[in-house]
Amino acid sequence: MGNTAETELIMIPGPVQVAPQVLRALSKPMINHRGPEFKKILDESREKLRSLFNTESDVIILSGSGTCAMEAAVGNLGGHKKFVAIENGKFGERLKLLTSLYGSSAPIIAEWGTSINTDKVKQALQEGADAVTIVHNETSTGMTNDVEQIGALCRKYEALLIMDGVSSIGGIEAPIDKWGVDIAFTGSQKCLGLPPGLSMIAVNERAWDIIKTAQKRPFYADLIAHMKSADKGQTPYTPTIPLFFALEEALKMLEAEGLSERINRYRTYATSIRAAIEAMGLELFPQPSASSTYSNTVTAIKMPSGIDFVSLKNEMRRRGIIIAGGQERLKGHIFRISNMGSISEGDILQVIEKLELVLLEKGVVSEMGKGTLAADCVLEGL
Amino acid sequence: MGNTAETELIMIPGPVQVAPQVLRALSKPMINHRGPEFKKILDESREKLRSLFNTESDVIILSGSGTCAMEAAVGNLGGHKKFVAIENGKFGERLKLLTSLYGSSAPIIAEWGTSINTDKVKQALQEGADAVTIVHNETSTGMTNDVEQIGALCRKYEALLIMDGVSSIGGIEAPIDKWGVDIAFTGSQKCLGLPPGLSMIAVNERAWDIIKTAQKRPFYADLIAHMKSADKGQTPYTPTIPLFFALEEALKMLEAEGLSERINRYRTYATSIRAAIEAMGLELFPQPSASSTYSNTVTAIKMPSGIDFVSLKNEMRRRGIIIAGGQERLKGHIFRISNMGSISEGDILQVIEKLELVLLEKGVVSEMGKGTLAADCVLEGL
Repeated sequence: MGNTAETELIMIPGPVQVAPQVLRALSKPMINHRGPEFKKILDESREKLRSLFNTESDVIILSGSGTCAMEAAVGNLGGHKKFVAIENGKFGERLKLLTSLYGSSAPIIAEWGTSINTDKVKQALQEGADAVTIVHNETSTGMTNDVEQIGALCRKYEALLIMDGVSSIGGIEAPIDKWGVDIAFTGSQKCLGLPPGLSMIAVNERAWDIIKTAQKRPFYADLIAHMKSADKGQTPYTPTIPLFFALEEALKMLEAEGLSERINRYRTYATSIRAAIEAMGLELFPQPSASSTYSNTVTAIKMPSGIDFVSLKNEMRRRGIIIAGGQERLKGHIFRISNMGSISEGDILQVIEKLELVLLEKGVVSEMGKGTLAADCVLEGL
Repeated sequence: MGNTAETELIMIPGPVQVAPQVLRALSKPMINHRGPEFKKILDESREKLRSLFNTESDVIILSGSGTCAMEAAVGNLGGHKKFVAIENGKFGERLKLLTSLYGSSAPIIAEWGTSINTDKVKQALQEGADAVTIVHNETSTGMTNDVEQIGALCRKYEALLIMDGVSSIGGIEAPIDKWGVDIAFTGSQKCLGLPPGLSMIAVNERAWDIIKTAQKRPFYADLIAHMKSADKGQTPYTPTIPLFFALEEALKMLEAEGLSERINRYRTYATSIRAAIEAMGLELFPQPSASSTYSNTVTAIKMPSGIDFVSLKNEMRRRGIIIAGGQERLKGHIFRISNMGSISEGDILQVIEKLELVLLEKGVVSEMGKGTLAADCVLEGL
């Protein structure tokens, strides 16, 4: 139990474990954000991000967290959109708040962790809604929504589709162009394995046409200002330069691994965690159905009886492992393990082993080894 | 001329030269932004920032550039304010744009680099304006506006005073409480000597009373959300953690030096640069008067005949020194040298010496040594 801050394993769904070479890149001396070195980093990163987003669209990089991009996505449309805000978790709820701030909003709410009723979405579109917001992967519940179905509906009824891809892009398959997503965004501190501080937003022509005619938009997250500057290899306001150095490095690492390899690796990790959870007799929290699946970037587990989250968190923390609890209404009811960022099979096994030990001590499980064996069978492909 | 990116001296008014220990702090491994380590950094930094701001007010830290704080300052007041936006430089202009986005705005515009007519401000307040925006130190023109005068007017007419202290706070005396400033903000990449990425905003009770009753506000820069989270030692959205590590270090360094010593040092640096400029026969750009002074954080110099800015910039750059040009309407007409960030007397002398050499080569000056001698006399207190 000799873990220090330097050796702690951070398994929460962002911030995530960051690779040493990415951490080192943060420490480079400053450069002029209006000079050629910054232009090169920005231009090349934006180009590589198009591959990450699976898109032909322009990608804008914002110096702010995923919520900054979320505000940009909803706030640049001019305030006249009739939004359908789909909520089945905390980030769907946040999108709902934003849609009501920047337009009229008719939310479609499912219990957190349960699936969206796509018929309701269809009905809202038939009744004249012209924009839909959806969270692809709900970090808060460990569930992935089927965006493809919603995309097909949006294309049929000519509504704009805005997708929160914060904890999916780069970690879960998300071919946004193919799905008919018009605006998608992600954050640096998830599948890209960077520290928090940047967000990226892809905007297609259909969305730009609306944005260009909008009378009102936020200022710091003004996409027109960002696009104008991006065309010159700049940002409208001073960018968070260290994160851009780190982004350059993280994108190199992603290129070296390959996007589909990264996605496969995350799938394997998440599958192994789920296998371990079930082998230990614990229950997964989300209830996936026809329009959803278990998340491959974060696993949400029901708190077993015999231990509360605070004890679990502290016992894991004593052993150098940081796990997450539930947010808001899910506080105390679930715990969450992320597999995003710079982690290895060994890290997964360590987490499961320590979890099993803590649960054994508390009498929640009666023997050691079932979890790690189940996890390792998946990791080994057995 | 063997400077590399690692040894380049960045003398633009942000990003600035960052000290090695601050750069190193950026590279620490991630921590949970909802955990005790982050709480400690946030709580302590906010407390120290109150000293930096010379205020009893609460200080909020935003994960975004100075413009993010600028939007927060103007955008949280509910949209019903009748602003007087004072503009005599680029950042005054930006505040003007923001005030018209978030309220009604009657700008008072002086030619960039010239002084504000305080009588006009008084008149506007008499006519019912209830909020004033002013840039304390205009990075774009190298001039510092007298906020104390405006503060006295605002207190007399009970108008809210919002001050952009981005390139002054921590580098130029700015006792905001004493002056009657209600909201003031700064950015990390100026006098604090950090990389860009964070901004800090101080809000007094008078301003909070208005903000609390506001019906509408921006989302990412929602000060109520930030304050609620800050009370728990958190941020509402994921913060740019590496910059918080760096802030902790930069505030330690500031404490070790002392705020008034830092301000004195910057004053000496700027005075020495101005002395050198005048000794070389060049002209300072701003025209200070009763309501303004030369800036002690950035010096703006008229482009002399015989050289254009692009040549000057490139010749300096070849020698490893990065200087700034004019922005927008001042492009080509001025160049700027900042003395913010982690620089030394030796750096100042180097910049002046190289500038003198470049100007000699171009025939702008006829002999070497006058500039460095004048600068060094100031530095040595002779």
